[in-house]
Amino acid sequence: MMDLDTLKFDDRGLIPAIVQDADTGKVLTLAYMNRESLKISLEKKLTCFWSRSRQELWLKGETSGNYQHIVELRADCDKDALLVRVRKDGPACHLGTDSCFDGNPIYESEED
Amino acid sequence: MMDLDTLKFDDRGLIPAIVQDADTGKVLTLAYMNRESLKISLEKKLTCFWSRSRQELWLKGETSGNYQHIVELRADCDKDALLVRVRKDGPACHLGTDSCFDGNPIYESEED
Repeated sequence: MMDLDTLKFDDRGLIPAIVQDADTGKVLTLAYMNRESLKISLEKKLTCFWSRSRQELWLKGETSGNYQHIVELRADCDKDALLVRVRKDGPACHLGTDSCFDGNPIYESEED
Repeated sequence: MMDLDTLKFDDRGLIPAIVQDADTGKVLTLAYMNRESLKISLEKKLTCFWSRSRQELWLKGETSGNYQHIVELRADCDKDALLVRVRKDGPACHLGTDSCFDGNPIYESEED
């Protein structure tokens, strides 16, 4: 397993974390972790982020019940981004949709 | 389609873009776009990013031949992150691997 001390957090102390449904492959959310939320995520095996809007630790599901159980957590080649594969107890998005990327299309190929 | 003027770029003028293989669902890369690289991406239907290390526009595949053809591009609920589903001509990672997330495991559940 990778040495966590080699992870690159940005000047705000954050690292972006892509959350992906481990079963469907659907990308659910892009959120941010700081060192403490990453530590909590690894201890609890539940996603914990740093909320940039509320400026506080955010254990996903703590209020909604929609916890995300971590199946796998990896860093990318540059060690400045995380991929978190999860099994989720409910919708990932605060709007109630399965994924935060279910709205707002910008381009769709006709061939797809 | 979404109004691009409502997208939220950060104080560096960047928005993170998750690149996902449209066929396999595999997450390939987390990269960053500025307004110009997004415009080029939409015009060419090929991923174009802003390289933070080189501080220049980066048309993925221009040197390697490993272009990423955009199938779908969406923003998230907060409009501060992008998901780009692509068909790729070759490996996404500069290390030659399929995805930038093929190395650096931090946690793997035993049940998976």
